[in-house]
Amino acid sequence: MPMLQSIKWENNTVYILDQRLLPDKVEYLKCTHYEQIAGAIENLSIRGAPAIGIATAWAVAVASMSLNASSSEELFSDLNPVFQRLINTRPTAINIKWAIDRMQNLIKNNLSLPVSELKDMILNEAIRIHNEDIQVNKRIGEYALAFFKEGCTVITYCNAGALATGGYGTATAPMYLAKEKGIKFKVIACETRPVLQGARITAFELMKAGIDVTLICDNTAGALLRKGMIDFAIVGTDRTVRNGDVANKIGTYSLSVLCKENNVPFYVAAPTSSIDLSIPSGDMIPIEERSFEEVTTIKGVKIAPEGIKVINFAFDVTPAKYVTAIITEKGIFKPSEIKHLRLRQ
Amino acid sequence: MPMLQSIKWENNTVYILDQRLLPDKVEYLKCTHYEQIAGAIENLSIRGAPAIGIATAWAVAVASMSLNASSSEELFSDLNPVFQRLINTRPTAINIKWAIDRMQNLIKNNLSLPVSELKDMILNEAIRIHNEDIQVNKRIGEYALAFFKEGCTVITYCNAGALATGGYGTATAPMYLAKEKGIKFKVIACETRPVLQGARITAFELMKAGIDVTLICDNTAGALLRKGMIDFAIVGTDRTVRNGDVANKIGTYSLSVLCKENNVPFYVAAPTSSIDLSIPSGDMIPIEERSFEEVTTIKGVKIAPEGIKVINFAFDVTPAKYVTAIITEKGIFKPSEIKHLRLRQ
Repeated sequence: MPMLQSIKWENNTVYILDQRLLPDKVEYLKCTHYEQIAGAIENLSIRGAPAIGIATAWAVAVASMSLNASSSEELFSDLNPVFQRLINTRPTAINIKWAIDRMQNLIKNNLSLPVSELKDMILNEAIRIHNEDIQVNKRIGEYALAFFKEGCTVITYCNAGALATGGYGTATAPMYLAKEKGIKFKVIACETRPVLQGARITAFELMKAGIDVTLICDNTAGALLRKGMIDFAIVGTDRTVRNGDVANKIGTYSLSVLCKENNVPFYVAAPTSSIDLSIPSGDMIPIEERSFEEVTTIKGVKIAPEGIKVINFAFDVTPAKYVTAIITEKGIFKPSEIKHLRLRQ
Repeated sequence: MPMLQSIKWENNTVYILDQRLLPDKVEYLKCTHYEQIAGAIENLSIRGAPAIGIATAWAVAVASMSLNASSSEELFSDLNPVFQRLINTRPTAINIKWAIDRMQNLIKNNLSLPVSELKDMILNEAIRIHNEDIQVNKRIGEYALAFFKEGCTVITYCNAGALATGGYGTATAPMYLAKEKGIKFKVIACETRPVLQGARITAFELMKAGIDVTLICDNTAGALLRKGMIDFAIVGTDRTVRNGDVANKIGTYSLSVLCKENNVPFYVAAPTSSIDLSIPSGDMIPIEERSFEEVTTIKGVKIAPEGIKVINFAFDVTPAKYVTAIITEKGIFKPSEIKHLRLRQ
């Protein structure tokens, strides 16, 4: 099954799929210098919280290999501007910070080693971070596979797909696994206005993998649910908090309400790294407001009157009561059970 | 208040706003021959059930004035190809058929008159049909005005606006009247994918009239409702049936469910001409499926992968239980009261 990869390591080189060109072109950026990876994060060639964490780790590895430090201490000091540059690419992305913390801890704990050995460790850590993400997603997929009955139809939203992660995706992981196992199923992908990640990315990556996927406008989900055409929903999440509320792409809340109204289960695929028990309730999650132009223009084409006012929230909060279950790499939980999870935080 | 008109009669000439150019250009097509009006209906320069009914009446009037019939009988016979041409512009549009029936009845009942007098009657009938539509809409607006409290925010969907009718619109009629009365209020217009009537037309016509309007993606309505930012919804309808179910643009059902879930009243503006008591329930209304290209391309720009499957329902059905009230030119009714209405049908 040809599953597209957002980022890959081949012949000592990092390749990043330029997702800005999707779905028209599949082109990988060859990155031999960390600045190329930083640029790809900054200009959204690579996106999705897990994927940019992985790209950050690879950027540190690529940088360390090219530095001519004579000692591990010197290497650490030479990497400082690299860390800074990476953090500045997308200052609010916690996965970038997380990957850098992890690399810094590794280096600090091994400063006594010869620099060549430390460089090998850094490279191996990047490989490990990438593989761990794939393993987490596959485990989510294995748990969620229980819902994929022969002939079922599942609806998904935005892109919690392979291209947002190191591989398999979160919401899409059970789809790839079900496909591997030969289970017959259909996917309905919501286009996800304004940025159309569903149309441009989810529909594309599933189609490439030979999965039976159908695209709809976001406002069509309700009608399909009412007609009984959908068996369950599975979506990703940017952050799940202590009371089981879920923040995800704008429109997720609406889909969850429509599922509940039509007695259709609504599942959230959430790696435990996206669960934040320090926030008591979803309404305490700050919601980013983005540029009006995302709404008024599509691929540079104006679709609304000049000067129109716009509200463009990037995310919304789905209260726990609309969530049937949260699927993590540690198992499937009711939203009310999330607060009891033991997380490494 | 400069309310845009979809069609107007000035200096013995019909002018039709070319809505295909909205919101970029406001250009009226000068129509001195009925074929120009037929073409404008056919190519969607004018759209909206009431508006195309009115355009049909004007086309018959313009045609009759240019015909050199020596008798009323001859005029009637010469108009036959005109009727046929108009019906063929959009064969499923009942308002075209309705306007032609009305003109044909007028002519049949007055064949004994001199041809010049009959021509005057035809012209006056076109004026009357146009004015009746405006009066119906204003009456709907006056009833709905009761919901427009100072400082309120109303959400609307698609375009049930002045540009879909002879003037004032249905869902928008109370907005124009509230503006005339100096009531302060805000409108949230949903963009209405795939054809974006909300972004291109509703946002545009309200903005032109100086009404405080904000555009959102359809999937943002839920979040605003949950945040308590909306006081009530008012939408149009293509057909309301015996049990109070309402067919309207795809996505109307979703908005109604989200309103109910958040205890926000959901009103439907329905001229009695759009109420069809011969159909017992909304699920018996045939739902048109339209071209996949409406979803995969926007203004000619491709936004989805080549060859992707698409479901594109033009309409959905909102069950009566989600409808707070139906506002007609005869008053405001609960959905369950619709079946008792005495209609001329």
